[in-house]
Parts: sequence; C-alpha cells; structure tokens
Amino acid sequence: MSDLALIAGTGALPGLLAGALDAQGEGFVLAEMEGFPATVPGREPLRFRVERLVPFLDDLLARGVGRVIFAGAVRRPRLDPSAIDPATAALLPRLMAAMQAGDDATLRAVIGLFEERGLAVVGAEAVLPDLVPGAAVLTGAPTEADRRDAARAAAIVAALGAVDVGQGAVVAQGLCLAVEALPGTDAMLDWVAATGAGLRPDASGAKGVFYKAPKPGQDRRVDLPAIGPETVARAAAAGLAGIVWEAGGVICLNRAEMVADAEAAGLFLWARDPGGTEP
Amino acid sequence: MSDLALIAGTGALPGLLAGALDAQGEGFVLAEMEGFPATVPGREPLRFRVERLVPFLDDLLARGVGRVIFAGAVRRPRLDPSAIDPATAALLPRLMAAMQAGDDATLRAVIGLFEERGLAVVGAEAVLPDLVPGAAVLTGAPTEADRRDAARAAAIVAALGAVDVGQGAVVAQGLCLAVEALPGTDAMLDWVAATGAGLRPDASGAKGVFYKAPKPGQDRRVDLPAIGPETVARAAAAGLAGIVWEAGGVICLNRAEMVADAEAAGLFLWARDPGGTEP
Repeated sequence: MSDLALIAGTGALPGLLAGALDAQGEGFVLAEMEGFPATVPGREPLRFRVERLVPFLDDLLARGVGRVIFAGAVRRPRLDPSAIDPATAALLPRLMAAMQAGDDATLRAVIGLFEERGLAVVGAEAVLPDLVPGAAVLTGAPTEADRRDAARAAAIVAALGAVDVGQGAVVAQGLCLAVEALPGTDAMLDWVAATGAGLRPDASGAKGVFYKAPKPGQDRRVDLPAIGPETVARAAAAGLAGIVWEAGGVICLNRAEMVADAEAAGLFLWARDPGGTEP
Repeated sequence: MSDLALIAGTGALPGLLAGALDAQGEGFVLAEMEGFPATVPGREPLRFRVERLVPFLDDLLARGVGRVIFAGAVRRPRLDPSAIDPATAALLPRLMAAMQAGDDATLRAVIGLFEERGLAVVGAEAVLPDLVPGAAVLTGAPTEADRRDAARAAAIVAALGAVDVGQGAVVAQGLCLAVEALPGTDAMLDWVAATGAGLRPDASGAKGVFYKAPKPGQDRRVDLPAIGPETVARAAAAGLAGIVWEAGGVICLNRAEMVADAEAAGLFLWARDPGGTEP
C-alpha cells in the first residue's frame, strides 16, 4: 500500500513519472479522468469522472492515499448532469464558475477540493528533481541576437500569461512570429514552419527562438508546461535557432534525448534565468 | 496643386481613400515606398526609399504639401547602405533604433521626421469620417455568451498590445483559440478555420468572436487596423458567430459590403465601446 496517487492525463509525462517511481521502488495508485486515457504501460488505472469527484476522493482516502501528483494534460470536460452524485452536486457551482474563468481557475478549484478533503497536492519534481532544469545552457550557444529575441519573447509570454492565454511565443529578429493559444505548442511550431520563413526581415539574420514559461498565476505543483524531443524536432522544422524556457518552470521530458537531438539539429537549449542574469 | 499627400502602402485602403478624395474634388499627391506598390488605379505615384527620406520630404515640400495621410501596410524594409544620401544618413541612428524597438516605435519615428520637417500628419478618417464606425451593432445580435467572449478577447488584445504584438484574437466559450502575430489577421482566421472546430468544449455552444483593436500605444492617425469584406468571409469560414472591434479604433473597408456579406453569412458585426457600456 502506498500513500501516493498519480492522477494522469494524456501525453508522455505520466508514463515517465510512473517509470521513475517504479525505479525508486515507490508504489502508487494510478488514476485517470474518463475520456483522457493515460499512457502508463502495464497498469490498470482507476477511472473517475468530474461528475462523481467526491466519491472518487473518498475512494482515494479509503486506499490510504495522502499525497497526489497531477501529471499530463486534460481539457475541461463537458458535464453530464445525469451522472452527478449528490455530494459532488453541492460543489458544482464552484466548479462551473471556475471552468468559466479559465484553465488556471479550474485547476485552482480542483486542487482546492482535493486539499479540503485532506489530500496534499505535490509537484512532479518532488519525485523526479532532474525533470525541471535550473538555469543553464544545456547545449549550443545562443548569440546576442538570440538573447534579445529570448528577452522579448519572455516579455510577450508574461503579458499573455497575465490574461490566462498560452505559455509560448516565437520571436525572430525582434518580431513576434507566433503566439501560443489553445491549440498548443506543437500546432504553433508547425504553423511557424508553414508561414515563418518569409517573415524574417533579414534572411541571413537571427533565425529566432521558441520561448516557453509557466503563466504567472499558475500553480506550479500541478501544471508546469513541458517540452521534449518532439518540441526539438518541431523547432528545428520551424527553422529556429534554439529553444529557451524559464529555468525552474518547465518540465523537460527525456532530457538526454532532447540534448542529443538538439545537438544533431544544431539548436541550442537554454534554461534561462527569468531574472535575466546569465546564463 | 494640393497641400495633401497620400503616402500609400499595400491593401485596399489607399485606393478607397483616393476614390473618396476624387469624389470630394480634393486633389492630392500620391506616394509609395519602393517595394510596397499601392493599388490606386489611374495614377502614377511618387516613389521613395527610406534611404533617401530627406530628399523625398524636400520634394513634398517643394510641391506645396503641408498635410500627409498614411494609409495601407508596409513592412520595415531592409536598408541598402549604398543608397543612403548624407542628409538621411544623419537620421539613421534614430531610425535604426526605432526599427529595432518594434512597429510602433518605427512609425512614431517616421511621423516625427515628417513633423520636424513641417508636414502635418492627419488621420484617414479626417477625409472619410464614415470609415471608422462609432459604437453600434451594425448587423445581427450578439448573445450574452458572445458578449462575454468579446470582453475576454478585448482583455487579451489589450495585454498583447502592451508588448507591441498583434491586434486581434479569437475567443470562443471563454477559450482563446488564436492570437494574432506577425502573419496577420487573415492568416490567423485561416488557422482557426483549420484547427478551431474541435477545440470548442461545447459543439452546440457559442461559436466565438474575432476581436480587433488598435494597440494602446499606437498612433491612431497613421496605423488604425482595418477590416473588410475579406475579414467577414474568413470569419465565416472559421465558424465564428461575429466580428467585434473597438469602436472608433478600426477602419471598416467597404462597410456596406461588409454588412451585406455578414447578413448573408449569419454573422454579427459589432463596433464595441471599449469602456464596456452597451452596445
């Protein structure tokens, strides 16, 4: 029996965490939201619905769970009124109001419900500290122009985060080629690959950077943005010089593979100190 | 001889203004930046280069020009050092610094150079007041959900404008489907048409709005954003409920055609009071 539950969404992070927990010999309960299957080989997850959140929390408590890690992506689901149990129904006004107010508000509300029930919500990096690199250039060497593009992209992402929009932007030669919205990072980078080539004023100048950071109001325990080898491949296809992210604020999936792929593609990877000091 | 010059860029606005000036019997000098041909039928424009801006300003003054209207789009050009004349060379440090700092700064610098030379820069709506609608619903009827989406989109565009990024966003059911960057409105709406359908949580809920507004720091005499029938067609193709813009801050090209097209497509058109009062 374990006191840890992994609430898994889609994407690579849940499987990575599960593997690391297994490697450390740490048992855990795996759970997923119906409609958002997690990819964690060799395990049968508990499945829950938002409409029956309170019975699910009671089930976790009955299994001795005291700590919860959220990992992976889910979307705000549509609710089926006929599936709602009475205890959860009492919480619905709060949940619905939060779901109207945006992703961050929704997450804060969900975390609040877990905590009120006595479950501690902890960050994935509590289990895998290497997951979130501190300030460093991991490979390659950003130029002065790249550093200016990174600073401008960081300012744009901060402004966007303040209105609860995406966590990424692409800047080249001081110009904002793309901003991340609901479709996400991959869609944005694909779009830059399709549209960006002709937009840079100086074809032989700086190729630009993709910058990623958490939103200012984001609860870092449950919702750090993540990048991985797929991001490196897409940034290379978009013709960028490198990937920059807020040091301590972004999960790197398969870091060794990311570095190897970036080296092969000639991209730099830079976990940038948000205070702006080097590196 | 006329004291008015129309500095024309690309797009529909210069031709529309020229036609209106002709209809009012008001003469004008037409000029365009080399590489950014204006579409103004039946007229041979003066052509100028940024590298020889001072001789061009002198030429305008010699022709008796005292008022200048900027209309249409240009991009920050690459400069050819060999083409720079000595008088313009003295201004280059200012211009280059502004071009590094973004579109708004570049425009402010260019306006400043015209004004220092004694040329008054006036807005297009000084010639065509109907071009910039005041607060009104021009056609259709935004629902409460549409009004919430418009308010959220306005907040997003304001946050973006503060960091000198685009002037538009698409919001549906409170979610930001897309944000405008360098590729512009048309590219963004096409992208929503390609990606947006599956992103709305409630397929039968609000279809969302495209919102457009000038940036907070934008000089409204020279750089109001513009929408037109093409925008209506693209918003319809993107499956949106309507187009909303900041009343008094956006040029409507071919307003009658826009309204007819929007009616035919079932879209509303709403020039929204940025103060949030109705309409």
